[in-house]
Amino acid sequence: MLVTKLVLRGVYVGRFQPLHIGHCQAIKYILREVDELVIIVGSSQYSHTFKNPFTCGERISMIRMAMNEINIEHSKYLIVPIPDLENHALWVSLVVSMIPRFVRVYSNDPLTTRLFEEAKIEVKDIPLYEREKYSATEVRRRILEEEKWHELLPTSVTNFIIDIDGVARIQRLKVTDNL
Amino acid sequence: MLVTKLVLRGVYVGRFQPLHIGHCQAIKYILREVDELVIIVGSSQYSHTFKNPFTCGERISMIRMAMNEINIEHSKYLIVPIPDLENHALWVSLVVSMIPRFVRVYSNDPLTTRLFEEAKIEVKDIPLYEREKYSATEVRRRILEEEKWHELLPTSVTNFIIDIDGVARIQRLKVTDNL
Amino acid sequence: MLVTKLVLRGVYVGRFQPLHIGHCQAIKYILREVDELVIIVGSSQYSHTFKNPFTCGERISMIRMAMNEINIEHSKYLIVPIPDLENHALWVSLVVSMIPRFVRVYSNDPLTTRLFEEAKIEVKDIPLYEREKYSATEVRRRILEEEKWHELLPTSVTNFIIDIDGVARIQRLKVTDNL
Amino acid sequence: MLVTKLVLRGVYVGRFQPLHIGHCQAIKYILREVDELVIIVGSSQYSHTFKNPFTCGERISMIRMAMNEINIEHSKYLIVPIPDLENHALWVSLVVSMIPRFVRVYSNDPLTTRLFEEAKIEVKDIPLYEREKYSATEVRRRILEEEKWHELLPTSVTNFIIDIDGVARIQRLKVTDNL
Amino acid sequence: MLVTKLVLRGVYVGRFQPLHIGHCQAIKYILREVDELVIIVGSSQYSHTFKNPFTCGERISMIRMAMNEINIEHSKYLIVPIPDLENHALWVSLVVSMIPRFVRVYSNDPLTTRLFEEAKIEVKDIPLYEREKYSATEVRRRILEEEKWHELLPTSVTNFIIDIDGVARIQRLKVTDNL
Amino acid sequence: MLVTKLVLRGVYVGRFQPLHIGHCQAIKYILREVDELVIIVGSSQYSHTFKNPFTCGERISMIRMAMNEINIEHSKYLIVPIPDLENHALWVSLVVSMIPRFVRVYSNDPLTTRLFEEAKIEVKDIPLYEREKYSATEVRRRILEEEKWHELLPTSVTNFIIDIDGVARIQRLKVTDNL
Repeated sequence: MLVTKLVLRGVYVGRFQPLHIGHCQAIKYILREVDELVIIVGSSQYSHTFKNPFTCGERISMIRMAMNEINIEHSKYLIVPIPDLENHALWVSLVVSMIPRFVRVYSNDPLTTRLFEEAKIEVKDIPLYEREKYSATEVRRRILEEEKWHELLPTSVTNFIIDIDGVARIQRLKVTDNL
Repeated sequence: MLVTKLVLRGVYVGRFQPLHIGHCQAIKYILREVDELVIIVGSSQYSHTFKNPFTCGERISMIRMAMNEINIEHSKYLIVPIPDLENHALWVSLVVSMIPRFVRVYSNDPLTTRLFEEAKIEVKDIPLYEREKYSATEVRRRILEEEKWHELLPTSVTNFIIDIDGVARIQRLKVTDNL
Repeated sequence: MLVTKLVLRGVYVGRFQPLHIGHCQAIKYILREVDELVIIVGSSQYSHTFKNPFTCGERISMIRMAMNEINIEHSKYLIVPIPDLENHALWVSLVVSMIPRFVRVYSNDPLTTRLFEEAKIEVKDIPLYEREKYSATEVRRRILEEEKWHELLPTSVTNFIIDIDGVARIQRLKVTDNL
Repeated sequence: MLVTKLVLRGVYVGRFQPLHIGHCQAIKYILREVDELVIIVGSSQYSHTFKNPFTCGERISMIRMAMNEINIEHSKYLIVPIPDLENHALWVSLVVSMIPRFVRVYSNDPLTTRLFEEAKIEVKDIPLYEREKYSATEVRRRILEEEKWHELLPTSVTNFIIDIDGVARIQRLKVTDNL
Repeated sequence: MLVTKLVLRGVYVGRFQPLHIGHCQAIKYILREVDELVIIVGSSQYSHTFKNPFTCGERISMIRMAMNEINIEHSKYLIVPIPDLENHALWVSLVVSMIPRFVRVYSNDPLTTRLFEEAKIEVKDIPLYEREKYSATEVRRRILEEEKWHELLPTSVTNFIIDIDGVARIQRLKVTDNL
Repeated sequence: MLVTKLVLRGVYVGRFQPLHIGHCQAIKYILREVDELVIIVGSSQYSHTFKNPFTCGERISMIRMAMNEINIEHSKYLIVPIPDLENHALWVSLVVSMIPRFVRVYSNDPLTTRLFEEAKIEVKDIPLYEREKYSATEVRRRILEEEKWHELLPTSVTNFIIDIDGVARIQRLKVTDNL
């Protein structure tokens, strides 16, 4: 018999490049189904590219700010960065070894879903919230082309990106990626 | 002018193999000096050796249980795993890229201290609490030699180690390390 | 004077994503020229992408099944997985260190050929057998678009792919690669 | 229903630095219990140290020679090199991804046993055959100190080590390790 | 007080695939502003691809030949290879740890510039010298398409590429990259 | 026929932790036999341990200072850092790919010698100059135990170590290594 109390813990995987309102909707949705959520900052090792402009530390900051803004208590979630591996077949083991025990993964990404399912771990879809609009790809595109992007993000995250000069970073990195 | 509110954030680095009462004392001490603490799970990639028996995920579980047990609120700390690097000269940059902005590091480890100081980052000592007794080396030795070890750990961590069959793991791994 | 009997050993490099009838033709052709063949499972670390859907273990299974199906004795070949390296200049050394001594490489791939030739190792072309049809790219395309693909593979490999649910894997992974 | 015929496949892990008569006894023992054996050349990436003098390719050669010498058919076994990983928690996944499906592991090594058991994979002990004498450590010691070592190895492996000048390699490398 | 004499040392980063007259112009320009120049051979680990055909050693040879040809003394520069890292956020630290102390970086590459600026290291632009013509991309294109390319390189570098059969290498590798 | 002039180029491998007078003697000796010398800074990735206290950049600085001090012209040598590899069997290939063509290696280290000899590259011994006294191990021991160490190093290197606070670094790191 286990002495330690069991917790109904879920897992949510994202890159958060950057965190947007769609991520917030997903997290609120999942927290109705589980007691506690592990938010995985995926592809944690990448930064300073157009597709992955922000560092892991910046993305952790964004998540904590956004959770505060939408009134999700700190006790309800924890954040764990996980790098991509060259060998996809090891990634589920990496996740299992790096986070507390969990019962279920929430994901719409086909590769993530496939890998967990092959390891016999339950995966559930998340209802997408205006997918066309609330996507990190769309946010980066608007920042690049100097269209309105503030409305796609929680206010605290918008301010944070401005503070760290994230707009210039994205615009600069695009040029390098084009070479 | 920054829009984002500045937080007085400290950093504490440990391996937590396993977490013991000395770690709890240190964290309580540091939280009197800072608003928020980043607890780094160092050498995060190692597990299943006698010196590093527990996985990163198990160590994160221990930290959360212990913080609950000593009534430290979730909003006061966040946990980030950081692997060791072959190239020590890059480790401070790795830390800086993986965690939110911080003002100061708390450490008694000479290498950690040296690396941060060479990077012009402030480091402060932590008063040690009965160092002979409260050390992870001592905990592993007592587990190995079947002496009393429960008194060195928070009760929740003791229970967790028992639940995951950690005693047998440590005893087994010692044999491999001896070969 | 060497005591160990010398064997005329050849090397054949493929990714086998998946193994098809063209690979079988090539292996039969080479075995007319050498006593023993080392079949290298190249890019061994990749799986679960549209271009590299199958794991190393699955590809080894395919090769053994196909060799049985076309009546090539086990004593005539051995299979060794070799990962790709970031640094191409080291790859020939890796091969040399990981397999028994060999006299010649069979390959039509320009990079493989170039690397072995620069290392002063003999490389011979393999006659291609209906290249348009018998290629792994064509197999994956047909699986994706639900065209007839069974005829391109040995029967045992077709059955194996069906057993491990390989069709769904390829179709799912295509979506991720499109993102 | 699976179309592919199921094989009762076992796994045996060794470093084979070098292969000795104890390994041969173990393989004969296991082949009485399984249809087919995957022989894993562990720590495959190491060579040219006193503890790991031989390359992966040399060790594969030794295994094939020894299996011929003791009349084990090629169809009964396959050889797969697997590197050590810095992160032990991923090693079982690596094995699973790199070899065909198997039902059971044979090992006396405490770490190997522990890792497979934590992954819910069956592990069986192998009866040791004069462990003091038939061990790779003893072989290397005797080679270093110029005592009789031929009797510990299959004749073909002894000859192979002589052919590749393995004695000088071991004696030289000892000096480097001492520094 | 420092005993060691301080040197006004600059840094110039290039891939030199291959070195062309534009690089020579840049180096001459920079040496008017600094006492000594560290020439970084970037992406040092890559070779034998169409974009990165030459090894690090070949690129070092090119630089030394070209510096001789344009009469830059050996005492004025040193060459240090630096690999790309998966994690961009660590690259500046890697540079700092691998070369002697420097005061300024010369670069027109947006990513390089951004990374050094975020680390509070001064970066200056270099006036480009007929950028359309003098670029490594243009050199490789001309070699591939068998147009006139000698005029873009110092004579010694042209001869070196011919000596090492670099033309065939580039033409061959293009085919592999197209697959 | 080669257009590029051939140079009689030798290779000397050291870790230079730190560079001492024995290294200087060796380099002077070798330069009597070759036109140009590639000085390899081995184990380039390590720093901040007791055995490897100095970064690659610091070691490059030491070499250049010492060569100036003993009046060896810049045109006679070039310095290339090479990291250790986990897989020794690839190290010679790495060296060959990272430096200009060479004819001979100078080394007394048994592993280095063995690896180059197995690759059919000529290796020559270097006469040792008061080995007991002029060794990096002895220098670090004296620094640690606060005995006289200046006399073992070129004056410029002694001054450099003092300038970068190397004495404190070595003394601090010893403590960490003892844990």
